[in-house]
Amino acid sequence: MHHHPGLFIPGPTNVPDAVRRAMNIPQEDMRSPDFPKLTLPLFSDLKKVFKTQTGQPFIYPSSGTGGWEAVLTNTLNPGDKVLVSTFGQFSTLWADMCRRLGFETEIVEAEWGEGVPLEIFADRLAKDKEHRIKAVLGTHNETATGVTSDVAGMRRALDASNHPALLYIDGVSSIASIDFRMDEWGVDGIVSGSQKGFMLPTGLAIICMSEKALEAHKSSTFPRCFFSFEDMMRANKDGYFPYTPATVLLRGLRASLDLLFEEGLENVFARHRHVASGVRAAVSAWGLHLVAKEAKWHSDTVSAVYTPPGVDAVAVLRRAFDRYGVSFGSGLARLNGKVFRIGHIGATNEVMLLGALAAAEMALVDCGARIELGSGVAAAQSSYGARPAVLAKAA
Amino acid sequence: MHHHPGLFIPGPTNVPDAVRRAMNIPQEDMRSPDFPKLTLPLFSDLKKVFKTQTGQPFIYPSSGTGGWEAVLTNTLNPGDKVLVSTFGQFSTLWADMCRRLGFETEIVEAEWGEGVPLEIFADRLAKDKEHRIKAVLGTHNETATGVTSDVAGMRRALDASNHPALLYIDGVSSIASIDFRMDEWGVDGIVSGSQKGFMLPTGLAIICMSEKALEAHKSSTFPRCFFSFEDMMRANKDGYFPYTPATVLLRGLRASLDLLFEEGLENVFARHRHVASGVRAAVSAWGLHLVAKEAKWHSDTVSAVYTPPGVDAVAVLRRAFDRYGVSFGSGLARLNGKVFRIGHIGATNEVMLLGALAAAEMALVDCGARIELGSGVAAAQSSYGARPAVLAKAA
Amino acid sequence: MHHHPGLFIPGPTNVPDAVRRAMNIPQEDMRSPDFPKLTLPLFSDLKKVFKTQTGQPFIYPSSGTGGWEAVLTNTLNPGDKVLVSTFGQFSTLWADMCRRLGFETEIVEAEWGEGVPLEIFADRLAKDKEHRIKAVLGTHNETATGVTSDVAGMRRALDASNHPALLYIDGVSSIASIDFRMDEWGVDGIVSGSQKGFMLPTGLAIICMSEKALEAHKSSTFPRCFFSFEDMMRANKDGYFPYTPATVLLRGLRASLDLLFEEGLENVFARHRHVASGVRAAVSAWGLHLVAKEAKWHSDTVSAVYTPPGVDAVAVLRRAFDRYGVSFGSGLARLNGKVFRIGHIGATNEVMLLGALAAAEMALVDCGARIELGSGVAAAQSSYGARPAVLAKAA
Amino acid sequence: MHHHPGLFIPGPTNVPDAVRRAMNIPQEDMRSPDFPKLTLPLFSDLKKVFKTQTGQPFIYPSSGTGGWEAVLTNTLNPGDKVLVSTFGQFSTLWADMCRRLGFETEIVEAEWGEGVPLEIFADRLAKDKEHRIKAVLGTHNETATGVTSDVAGMRRALDASNHPALLYIDGVSSIASIDFRMDEWGVDGIVSGSQKGFMLPTGLAIICMSEKALEAHKSSTFPRCFFSFEDMMRANKDGYFPYTPATVLLRGLRASLDLLFEEGLENVFARHRHVASGVRAAVSAWGLHLVAKEAKWHSDTVSAVYTPPGVDAVAVLRRAFDRYGVSFGSGLARLNGKVFRIGHIGATNEVMLLGALAAAEMALVDCGARIELGSGVAAAQSSYGARPAVLAKAA
Repeated sequence: MHHHPGLFIPGPTNVPDAVRRAMNIPQEDMRSPDFPKLTLPLFSDLKKVFKTQTGQPFIYPSSGTGGWEAVLTNTLNPGDKVLVSTFGQFSTLWADMCRRLGFETEIVEAEWGEGVPLEIFADRLAKDKEHRIKAVLGTHNETATGVTSDVAGMRRALDASNHPALLYIDGVSSIASIDFRMDEWGVDGIVSGSQKGFMLPTGLAIICMSEKALEAHKSSTFPRCFFSFEDMMRANKDGYFPYTPATVLLRGLRASLDLLFEEGLENVFARHRHVASGVRAAVSAWGLHLVAKEAKWHSDTVSAVYTPPGVDAVAVLRRAFDRYGVSFGSGLARLNGKVFRIGHIGATNEVMLLGALAAAEMALVDCGARIELGSGVAAAQSSYGARPAVLAKAA
Repeated sequence: MHHHPGLFIPGPTNVPDAVRRAMNIPQEDMRSPDFPKLTLPLFSDLKKVFKTQTGQPFIYPSSGTGGWEAVLTNTLNPGDKVLVSTFGQFSTLWADMCRRLGFETEIVEAEWGEGVPLEIFADRLAKDKEHRIKAVLGTHNETATGVTSDVAGMRRALDASNHPALLYIDGVSSIASIDFRMDEWGVDGIVSGSQKGFMLPTGLAIICMSEKALEAHKSSTFPRCFFSFEDMMRANKDGYFPYTPATVLLRGLRASLDLLFEEGLENVFARHRHVASGVRAAVSAWGLHLVAKEAKWHSDTVSAVYTPPGVDAVAVLRRAFDRYGVSFGSGLARLNGKVFRIGHIGATNEVMLLGALAAAEMALVDCGARIELGSGVAAAQSSYGARPAVLAKAA
Repeated sequence: MHHHPGLFIPGPTNVPDAVRRAMNIPQEDMRSPDFPKLTLPLFSDLKKVFKTQTGQPFIYPSSGTGGWEAVLTNTLNPGDKVLVSTFGQFSTLWADMCRRLGFETEIVEAEWGEGVPLEIFADRLAKDKEHRIKAVLGTHNETATGVTSDVAGMRRALDASNHPALLYIDGVSSIASIDFRMDEWGVDGIVSGSQKGFMLPTGLAIICMSEKALEAHKSSTFPRCFFSFEDMMRANKDGYFPYTPATVLLRGLRASLDLLFEEGLENVFARHRHVASGVRAAVSAWGLHLVAKEAKWHSDTVSAVYTPPGVDAVAVLRRAFDRYGVSFGSGLARLNGKVFRIGHIGATNEVMLLGALAAAEMALVDCGARIELGSGVAAAQSSYGARPAVLAKAA
Repeated sequence: MHHHPGLFIPGPTNVPDAVRRAMNIPQEDMRSPDFPKLTLPLFSDLKKVFKTQTGQPFIYPSSGTGGWEAVLTNTLNPGDKVLVSTFGQFSTLWADMCRRLGFETEIVEAEWGEGVPLEIFADRLAKDKEHRIKAVLGTHNETATGVTSDVAGMRRALDASNHPALLYIDGVSSIASIDFRMDEWGVDGIVSGSQKGFMLPTGLAIICMSEKALEAHKSSTFPRCFFSFEDMMRANKDGYFPYTPATVLLRGLRASLDLLFEEGLENVFARHRHVASGVRAAVSAWGLHLVAKEAKWHSDTVSAVYTPPGVDAVAVLRRAFDRYGVSFGSGLARLNGKVFRIGHIGATNEVMLLGALAAAEMALVDCGARIELGSGVAAAQSSYGARPAVLAKAA
C-alpha cells in the first residue's frame, strides 16, 4: 500500500500542487473574447524561457515527438539533406524520423555516453561546400544516457564554415531545467514538451522557431496540415488556435510559468544542478558509473547509472517499484538491463532525491549489489551541505 | 461576477465532476508494469463505443484535426483521389486538408443545412469505373450547421456500385452522443476527439480503423511518423505507446467510459435526442429557424439557429457572454453574424438546457428580437414533459 | 443520469470553482512559522464582512449551531435570563438551545412568516426595569420561512429603554449575502457558518463578538472548554489556534473572501437582491404565495413558497430531485408538506435560477399544480431585464 | 522553492490522493433521500475500526478536543469525580478540560515518557470503595511524548476492584494506526479525530460510546446542546444529522475507510510498526534518545526525540522547515527546545520516512549535532530490510 508513490523518471515529472490546482477547472470556450488574455502572454513568456527576442513559439496538443515533426515538416522540402548525430535512444529516434519522412539523413553516430561530436560535425559541414545540408539536428539533453551536449559548440561548428544550415535542437528534457539560449546560440528551432521542465502532464509540444526558420517555412512544400505553422500563426496572432486547443494544459502552463519566473530561471537551473550534484555524489559513493563519460556531459536533469556486473537493472527497477513504490527510468534499447535512470527534473528538491537515493540503495542491495546502505545518501547529504547562496535564496 | 458560467458550445463540453476527479492525479510512469491494466481495457471498451468487433482503435495526444490526418496519411498514397462532400465549416476543413496533403480531392458541395448528398455520391461512385477514388469522406455530424448525415446511406451508395473505396467518417461531434455503427455501416475509419461526447478536455484524437483500412495501411507510402499506425500498433498491443501518452486524459477516458456504460449507450443517445428535442421546440416557439433544413438532418448534439432579420448573431453571443455568463457557439464562416449555435452534447440535462434557453431568450430580446420571454422555455418544458420511459430509467 | 445536479437549497451553497481549487491542497503544519500569514489577515478581513472596527472574530471547526453555543456559553452565566423571538424552525432551535443550556428563556413567538416583533420586544425590555434580561436573541434571516428581520430595529428597541442586554444575532443565512452592520446596529454577537454566504463547505462556525460581549465573557462562569473564547484569543492573537484548526477550510475562506472583496460587498448584496427579485416575480406569476407575509420581510437568500392547495410539497421536492436532478429545500416542522424553499444564496446568478425556476415549474405541474409552464421563468426574465447598473458592473 | 514540502508531524497527516479526490466534490443536500446511502454504512464501518459490536459511533463537525468534551458532557453530571493520569501535553489538556468543566478531577501525574501508571490506578480504584469515581480517563497514545499506554491494563485495573467507573480513552493519534479493541478492552468511550489515522483534513471528531456509557447518558444533566448525543442518535438512526454535517469530510471518510479495509486493518497496524521501527533504529544510530523511556511504550505513530545537549530543538525544526522544506513536530510545553517529533502516522511508507530521516540528519548537523550523515538512514534501511511477509503482502 504505497499511498505516496515516488516518481523519479525523467518525465513525466511531478506536477506541483499549484499547477494541478490550476488545471482542475471547468472547460471554457476557446473562441470567447476573454481567451486571448490567457494565450497572448503565454507566447511572450515562452520566449523568455527560450531566451529569445525574435523567435516564434508554437504550442500543439501533441507530444515532443510531434514537436520534432512540426519543426522538420514546416521548414524543409521533401528529400532535403539533414545532418544529425545519434548518441542515445532519443537522438536515434529523431534521426529515424528524418529517414521515415523521406529526408536524406546523414548520421554521425557517437558512443552512448558522449555528446554531439563537435569536431566531426565541423568537419562534415566544412566539406559540404554546396550546402546540401539544409538542417543540422542536435539533442541538447539525451534523456536515455543523461548526457548534455554543447549547443553553443554546434553553432560554432556551423559558423566556422559559414554554413547556412538551420540548427534544430531537441530540448525536451532540458528546457526550463538546464540553461538554454536560443538567440545567443543561434538556434533556429527548439523542441520541448509539457511533461518535463514545464512540470505539466503530457499533452503539449512546445516549440520555438527563429525568423530564419520561418523564412525557410515560406518555401517549404512538405505536405502537412495538423502541424502547419501557417494556420497557427494566422490564429495565434490574435490569441486563438486553428483547432480546439488543450485549454486545461494552457491554464496549467500559465501556472507553471508563474512558478518558474517566481523562482527565477537562473535559480531554477542552479537548483537542478545542485540536486543533480547530490545524485552524482551518491553514484560515486556507491562505486558505480554514470553512462555519461565525462563531467562536461553530466546532465542536471537525469542520471543514467550502470548497475554493477551481475546485477540486472531490470530487476532493480522492478524491485524499486514493487517493494518500495518508487519508479525509476529503465535503460533503453542497448542499455536495457544494464542501466537505470534517476530523473531529477522539474519540481524536485533535495529531500525528495534523498528518499529516492535511499530507495535505490535498497533495491540495488536487494538485487545483489555490494553497496553500503546509506553511503549514497550520506554523499548526497554532504554535497547538499554546500548550501550555495543561490539555493538558500531560492528556498 | 458569474461564479458558474454556462458552457453551451458544441465542444469542449462540460466535464462531469467524476471525470474531473479521475484526472486530478499525480503523474505516473507510462512504462510501469501496471500501466497496461489501464490501457488495454480502454482499447477494447472503445470498440464498444464505435460498435465494432474487428476495428482497431488508436489514441493520439492530439485533436480531431490530428485524427483526420492520421486516417488519411496512414492509408492513402501521395496523389490518391478522394471523394468528399462539404456542407459546413468542418467538412470544408477536412476537404481542405485533403488538398493540402496533396490528394486529388473531388468535392461535392451541398448547401449548408443539408447532409451528405447521397444520390450525387452514388452517381459519382458509379461513374468511377476504374476505382480511382480510393476513399470517400463524410461528416456524420456537421458541427457548424447542426446537421447529421446518413452514414448508412453512404455505405449503400458504395455498395450500389460495388465500389471498393474506403469509407472515412468524421464523428467528432457524434461519437458517444448519436448512434454510430462502425461494423454495420461498413465504416473503415472513424475520427473522434476527447472533448465532445467523451466529456473530457481537449487533447486526444480517438480514431478507429477497419481491417480493410489496416490492409491499405500496409501499402501506404505517405511520409509520416508522429501519426504512424505501425509504431502505435507495435506498442499498443502490450498496452504501451511509442511516445509519452497523455496519461491524465487516459485516466479521464476510463472514468468517462464508465459513465457511458453505466448509463447505457442507447440511453445516452436517447437522452441526447430528448434534450435536443426541447431545444428544437424552443426554436420553433420563438419563430426562428434551424440551419438544418429538414427533420431528418436535425442534430441531437448541436442546434444552429438563424437570428431574425436585423438581429446580429455576434451581438447576441456577446450579450449572452457578457451579461448572462453563458457561452454559445458562433456562426462559422459564411454563417458568421447570422447564426448562433446551442451545444447540447455530452454531460447535459434538461435543466441545464432550460437555463440556457432562458439566457438565449434574454440575449435575443436584448438585441432586438421580437420574441416572447419564456416562450421557448415553455415549449421545451412541454417537450420534456413527454417523459419517455427510457429517460425516466436513465435518470 | 444527472451529471450536473442543481443545488438550490439555502445551504450548503454552491462552492465556486476557485474556492474548490483553493481547498484542494496538501495538509500543512498549523504550527509552522508561516501559518499566521494565512490566519491573521482572515481575522481582519472577517471584520470587514461583519462591518465592525472593534469586534473580535472567532473561527471554530464546528457549525452554525456550535456558533450559537459559543456565543451563549462564553458570555452568560448559568440561569441567566434571555429574551428570544421565534418565528421559524431555526429561531425555535436557538431558543430551545437556551432552555437546554439552562438559561431562563423568555420566548416571544411570532407567526411564521413574520419577523422579530419589534414592538413586543420593546415592550418587554421596557418592563424589565431590573435588567434581568442579559441577552436579546434575534434571527437576522430565518432560513425556514425566508424572512429577514430588522436588526437595526432591535437595537432601537433596546436603546428606547436604555436596556443594557447584549444583542445576539443569528446571521447564518444572511452574512456575506444580505447587508449586516455590526457596529452601526450595536450587535454584540453575530453567528455565521461557512456553508452559506461564505460559499464554503460546512465545517466552520464563524462568529464575531463586540467589546461589550468580551467584557461580559470575563465574568462568565458557564462550564466550557472546546468553545472557550479565552483559549482562542490567547492563540489567535499570534495567528494560531488552541487545537488543530480546519486548515483546508481556512484556505478556502481566504479564496472566498477574495471573491467577495473583488466583487465588492455592496455588489454582492445587490446581486442577491436582484436574483431574489426574479424568484419572487416567478412565484407571483405562478399565483403562489411566499411564507414571508410582507415585502419588508422578503429574504434575498431564500424564498419559502406555499404549494397550491392539494399539491403536496414533499411530492414536488421528490419529483424535482428524482426526475429533474434539482434539490430544493423542504418545508421544515409545521411547514412540512406545505412549503418548498428555493435557495438563492452564495455563488448564484440569474441563469442558474432561471433553470431552477423552470425545474420548479415542471415539478409543480407534474404534481398537479395548475401553473402555466414558462410563466414564472418569463416573469423572472422580465425582472432581470431591469439590468441595474450595479449588476452590469458586478458582471 | 520547495514544490513538494514534507509533512512529518503527528497530524494533520498526509491525505492520500484518492481521499483528496473523493473530497473534491460539489456540495450536496444533506436532507436528500440518497444521503443515508452514504452515512449509514459509515457508522457501521466505524464500528469495525473501533473493534466493537455494540458501540455507537458519533461524528461531529469538530476536532478531537470537541470529542473529549462530547464524551464527558454527555455522560457525567456536574461535579462528578474523574480519575485521570497525565504524562504529556495532551493528557494534561484533557485533565484540564475536566477541571474547567467542573468535574472533581483526581490527577495521577506520571513522568513524561512513561505511560498510564497502572499500579497507581489500580490502587486508587481499589481505595474508592464508595465508587465516587465515575470515569477513568486514559490516553492511548500520548502525541507529545510518543508513548503508547496499555489500555487493556487499565481495564484490568478496573476489574481488579470490580469498579463500575466508565473507561474513557483518547485515541486521537492511535485509532486506525495502532491496534485498539473497544469491546475486548471494555472501553466505554473512545475519542478520535479525522486528521490522524483516518488520513483526512481536520474537521471531524469521531467517537464511539459503549452501551454502558449510553445508559449513563440517560441520567446525565450536564448542560449541552451542540454535542448532545440525544439529538445525534435521533437523527443518525435514519442517516441524517441534527444540523448541517460536514458532507465533504464524510465523503472523504468513505474513501479513507475503503483504503483502510482494502489494505486490511491488521496490515495497517503492521505497516505503522514497520515504518516506526526504522525511525527508532535511526534515532538509536544517531546516539539520541526517545522521550519514551521503555520499548513497551514506544509509539508506532510518533517518535519524540531529544536533541543532543547544546542543540536547540527549535533551531533544528526551523532549519528543517526553512532549508529543507520539511515539517517536524515541535516539543510541547516542558519539552519545548529539547525535543522534536517525527510523525509516522497515516499514509506513510518507508521511502517517505527515509527522506524525512535524511532531512532530520542534515538539520541536526547544521545545528551542531555530532551525527554522522547517513547513519540514521542506513539503520532505518537495515531495519526495513527485514521485509516481513505481512508488509510485502500489503504492498
